[in-house]
Amino acid sequence: MTDDSQAGFSTLSDLEEAASRKTDKSAWAYIQGGAGEEWTIRANREAFHRRTLRPRVLVDVENLEFGTTLLGTRVSAPFYVSPTASHGLVHPDAEAATARAASKANILAAFSTLTSISLEDIAKAAPTGPRWFQLYLQPEFSSTKTLVERAEKAGYKAIILTVDMPVAGNRDRENQAGSPLASPGALGNGREIVRPLRNPVVEGDRAHIRKEASNTWKVVDHLQEITRLPLILKGILTREDAKLAVVHGVKGVVVSNHGGRQLDAAPASLDALSEVADEVGSEVEVYFDGGIRRGSDIIMALALGARAVGVGRPVFWALAAGGEAGVSKLLSLLKTDVATVMALTGRRTISEIDKSLVNNPR
Amino acid sequence: MTDDSQAGFSTLSDLEEAASRKTDKSAWAYIQGGAGEEWTIRANREAFHRRTLRPRVLVDVENLEFGTTLLGTRVSAPFYVSPTASHGLVHPDAEAATARAASKANILAAFSTLTSISLEDIAKAAPTGPRWFQLYLQPEFSSTKTLVERAEKAGYKAIILTVDMPVAGNRDRENQAGSPLASPGALGNGREIVRPLRNPVVEGDRAHIRKEASNTWKVVDHLQEITRLPLILKGILTREDAKLAVVHGVKGVVVSNHGGRQLDAAPASLDALSEVADEVGSEVEVYFDGGIRRGSDIIMALALGARAVGVGRPVFWALAAGGEAGVSKLLSLLKTDVATVMALTGRRTISEIDKSLVNNPR
Amino acid sequence: MTDDSQAGFSTLSDLEEAASRKTDKSAWAYIQGGAGEEWTIRANREAFHRRTLRPRVLVDVENLEFGTTLLGTRVSAPFYVSPTASHGLVHPDAEAATARAASKANILAAFSTLTSISLEDIAKAAPTGPRWFQLYLQPEFSSTKTLVERAEKAGYKAIILTVDMPVAGNRDRENQAGSPLASPGALGNGREIVRPLRNPVVEGDRAHIRKEASNTWKVVDHLQEITRLPLILKGILTREDAKLAVVHGVKGVVVSNHGGRQLDAAPASLDALSEVADEVGSEVEVYFDGGIRRGSDIIMALALGARAVGVGRPVFWALAAGGEAGVSKLLSLLKTDVATVMALTGRRTISEIDKSLVNNPR
Amino acid sequence: MTDDSQAGFSTLSDLEEAASRKTDKSAWAYIQGGAGEEWTIRANREAFHRRTLRPRVLVDVENLEFGTTLLGTRVSAPFYVSPTASHGLVHPDAEAATARAASKANILAAFSTLTSISLEDIAKAAPTGPRWFQLYLQPEFSSTKTLVERAEKAGYKAIILTVDMPVAGNRDRENQAGSPLASPGALGNGREIVRPLRNPVVEGDRAHIRKEASNTWKVVDHLQEITRLPLILKGILTREDAKLAVVHGVKGVVVSNHGGRQLDAAPASLDALSEVADEVGSEVEVYFDGGIRRGSDIIMALALGARAVGVGRPVFWALAAGGEAGVSKLLSLLKTDVATVMALTGRRTISEIDKSLVNNPR
Repeated sequence: MTDDSQAGFSTLSDLEEAASRKTDKSAWAYIQGGAGEEWTIRANREAFHRRTLRPRVLVDVENLEFGTTLLGTRVSAPFYVSPTASHGLVHPDAEAATARAASKANILAAFSTLTSISLEDIAKAAPTGPRWFQLYLQPEFSSTKTLVERAEKAGYKAIILTVDMPVAGNRDRENQAGSPLASPGALGNGREIVRPLRNPVVEGDRAHIRKEASNTWKVVDHLQEITRLPLILKGILTREDAKLAVVHGVKGVVVSNHGGRQLDAAPASLDALSEVADEVGSEVEVYFDGGIRRGSDIIMALALGARAVGVGRPVFWALAAGGEAGVSKLLSLLKTDVATVMALTGRRTISEIDKSLVNNPR
Repeated sequence: MTDDSQAGFSTLSDLEEAASRKTDKSAWAYIQGGAGEEWTIRANREAFHRRTLRPRVLVDVENLEFGTTLLGTRVSAPFYVSPTASHGLVHPDAEAATARAASKANILAAFSTLTSISLEDIAKAAPTGPRWFQLYLQPEFSSTKTLVERAEKAGYKAIILTVDMPVAGNRDRENQAGSPLASPGALGNGREIVRPLRNPVVEGDRAHIRKEASNTWKVVDHLQEITRLPLILKGILTREDAKLAVVHGVKGVVVSNHGGRQLDAAPASLDALSEVADEVGSEVEVYFDGGIRRGSDIIMALALGARAVGVGRPVFWALAAGGEAGVSKLLSLLKTDVATVMALTGRRTISEIDKSLVNNPR
Repeated sequence: MTDDSQAGFSTLSDLEEAASRKTDKSAWAYIQGGAGEEWTIRANREAFHRRTLRPRVLVDVENLEFGTTLLGTRVSAPFYVSPTASHGLVHPDAEAATARAASKANILAAFSTLTSISLEDIAKAAPTGPRWFQLYLQPEFSSTKTLVERAEKAGYKAIILTVDMPVAGNRDRENQAGSPLASPGALGNGREIVRPLRNPVVEGDRAHIRKEASNTWKVVDHLQEITRLPLILKGILTREDAKLAVVHGVKGVVVSNHGGRQLDAAPASLDALSEVADEVGSEVEVYFDGGIRRGSDIIMALALGARAVGVGRPVFWALAAGGEAGVSKLLSLLKTDVATVMALTGRRTISEIDKSLVNNPR
Repeated sequence: MTDDSQAGFSTLSDLEEAASRKTDKSAWAYIQGGAGEEWTIRANREAFHRRTLRPRVLVDVENLEFGTTLLGTRVSAPFYVSPTASHGLVHPDAEAATARAASKANILAAFSTLTSISLEDIAKAAPTGPRWFQLYLQPEFSSTKTLVERAEKAGYKAIILTVDMPVAGNRDRENQAGSPLASPGALGNGREIVRPLRNPVVEGDRAHIRKEASNTWKVVDHLQEITRLPLILKGILTREDAKLAVVHGVKGVVVSNHGGRQLDAAPASLDALSEVADEVGSEVEVYFDGGIRRGSDIIMALALGARAVGVGRPVFWALAAGGEAGVSKLLSLLKTDVATVMALTGRRTISEIDKSLVNNPR
């Protein structure tokens, strides 16, 4: 299959299936896998299936609008590309392809600290596309600061600080298949960038991580001092931390369990969404990721308080299956599915999607 | 097997199995499939299994009566043939066979706008059988009006307006197998009839459906102005819409999620039934479809407030398995099963089937 | 394996496995199968798994007593052989073997109207064994009366009137495999005995069963007028009917859904047990059957209000696997398991088994 | 694989898989199996999956401390080796290997009355390792007393009295595979030591166990009179017994269902933990075992009130897979996983792990 023959993809499962055939085994384990026995990955999906949507009928849905603004940036749909590491694992065009596809669709894309190509090259690949930079704190704040400054200079519109990864989760599948990320120095943003530590170093009755794990809410203040970009915290699962985020002046939070890759006993993202959105939704923008696969998932998360939802693994599938054209196909499938669900639930605009649309969990 | 050798069918599963062997793959995907990952199809069945019946004993059940009236029409049992498209997909006699079998059993049959043969030919095939006409709104109201007038003239006793399909659901299985309905102009009711649009047309941050998707509750008023036939709304899942239906003067509502074919996050039909029946059951007749496979399902839905229940996919199975004789066998199996369950629960007539018969969901 | 080599049986599953190999296919379908899709059969087992026992420790359990009285008859354990039809299906010694094994163990055995050998021959096979007679009402009360008189004369100690079978349940598995009971006149109690009708006879909007289905609570009064034996009603699942049973003077009720063979939407027997026992347990003896496979099941049912529990299908397994010796082995395995569970829960006698032993359903 | 090549083990499942290949079939059935149909074994695991952890972020977790004290003994982690019988079944070094690995890691190890080598040899193998002695009451108290005195003399720090085994559970898998423990006199602590009786001896309506089953709470008093060692009761699942334990002056209780090996209808250990810990956690130390496989399990049990958790079957797996080095690997994997989960939940020390970390069961 060539990158531009996307005709055969009518669902995300088609993309996943094609990707599984094209992708190296250890890369596939890395992409699909999660922490521990992957209970949280499954919980992320099941949380959608414990709720239902209450469709309203005989509403004029001839024309639907699903555009929205994310921290003031106008985008064409209430979903975005979640930041994920090393798109080069599945396609030689790496994040450049992802960026171009998102930009053409006017979909916001967030790019990781751990991209395969540099953040500047991503910006060059799609100069006008709305993009955010995901930040992993580096051992030295000076390195962190350099990254933030580079992102600001390269036209990224916000900094997403990941707060749920002081150390990497213990991932059985990845442990068994071997990590495809093992070789150091392969990161697009420079040889000096470090990945989160894979395991605490245990000695007797103690364990030591690395300096970046010592960061507290003060780092949130420091980051806001060194950049004019709005700050978003990714990996908030409790109302307590959501409140602290507001106190520390961030502009958004992402309710996320890191795709089930960090703590394999974390709540399903969707179960945590109401808790966080009810607490701080009127003060900051609440984003969401974790298990989004269908238009109905997107609408459900929006109804429960998300302003937009991130899509992670499916972007890998699409990129592996068809490069830039694959990602374009993915974004197109999702838009069509969002529109269909809006029509079938009688919602003409994003603002009409509210809590009355969701039945409580059974 | 010839059409008249029905001896081997003792359950609906037998019919399903026989049909699966006789039916073209894409037609089978169309019939059996539903929206998305088919969670709602499964939910429709599971909803029956979360409830139980409370059987009463030592009631005189030597003679049982399960006849009832549906909008004043006397029928021999509290179930009916749900309107489904294109019976010709599974048998050359198409809806004529279905109509004859239903008529002979004095079972009400509802026929779709999208039948394989014309509504007039259906009427001719079984002139005295009680029948309803299911209406899909056409882009132009004039076409809609013509259909209604034809149905009225051809002796249909009610119009069932489907309200849950401003656009077709996103059906994975059908997408993958290819739609058997793709060729235009093959519809029995005329080349000018259009099917519901398969996908919204997306452009940027907007989507457009077709003119018929712009209809609101006003169309309910308009339809009642152009026909003396009672109007029933099919696809109501919320108390809010049920109330509006009553306000707009309809005579009945069908609690339905379109067999799980439209919104794959809709509530199980049975879960929505009490909500609707409790709200409007004293004012209009409440019908039900979604997952009916056994006599106990029929009795349970009646106990929760349905006046009668529709049977959809099993009619396809029966028609595929044995044509008119197959459908007759199906209706006979269902009647026997209804009678058995009435006897085993101590209910002699339909009017004795009430809420006290059902245990709340576990 | 010969009938007396029981060494290999250490669990009921062993007996089931051996029986499945030795038993004719249609007989096996008849024994194992149930109504409809067998949801109720599964529900019967699952109901045990939704509850747990609260074990108490450091109780002197060196010596345990599990003897009890059933309507005044002293028996060696709080379980009994449930009445089931046609033991001759699985072993040539038929009910004679069952009766001998039960008698030797001083376990109460109930025998069906539909036994393979006559009730008198059963009595002769084990003259001193405690036994009850299960009664199916016959079309003519005179025939019913004759059966009761024969049972009384033959030393049966009680009449168990089955009230949940005005007509036979609709059993898919049996329908498909063919009934092993089809040949008329093969019943041990005489050619004039009729089995419950297999299906209502449907005509139009009505169904007709047989005269015996017309019986109401009056038949309970009539039976008590014609016999001095205590009357027990089998197949009670609601508090309403339990109350009526008390009003009509019966001495016991059996909470039962007929092993899931009658109404495939009935509550799990165990779920109905508390409802019935709480309502009438202080006035009449409450028995139970449905899914008993382990000592812990027996103890749980006793804790929820049963005076004793019936064992049905496992007796068939044991009889098929090893004739009389097989049944003896089964009774012995159950006694040992009951004793083990009593020891592990800190209960020394049957009277110490009460509600405090059970955790509410999760 | 030699004992010291542990590189391939990155999860407990790896150890289990390696052990399953190396272990004799009947020994494997003994180790892995449990009572009855093993519902309680499964319930032990499921109880962890019905709860989730609430992770807090932006806490300084660079340095973590997971040391704790168990009855005053300083250990390097809040988990210990549960007492299990006959380590010699899986490795010739038997408990000596286990003791050395635990001692080197400063992990507390509890050793069974039924070890393969003598309690004195265990002590010699790892003289400085913290160790407890698990006691099965012997038929004669004099024998019990001798065991306690030997343990005290050999430097064991506490006596864990098992109270949930007046008789052995009825274990289907072990019954079918044959017990690897059948040969008498093979016990390390002497030919005079008896195992718990496998089955009550049934005669008629009674069952007899053995003299040790007659022990009541008085034996708790007697044991405390004959030793200065603190006494812990293992096998408490109810608040009632927990209260009695406190009344009788014990220093700790272990919430345990014996790994699902005794009563196959017992509550999941984790479900019983809160009940016990809420009742007596402020007065005595509460320990826990049952289904611990991950760091998240350990943290969850601690959050619900356990001071430390025991690990049973995984020690067998580790010992079978790699002898002492295997056990060392297991302890190391668990410590790393505990540290990871502490970091990911924002807990720096054991004392910071409290109830606020757990979401109620769904």
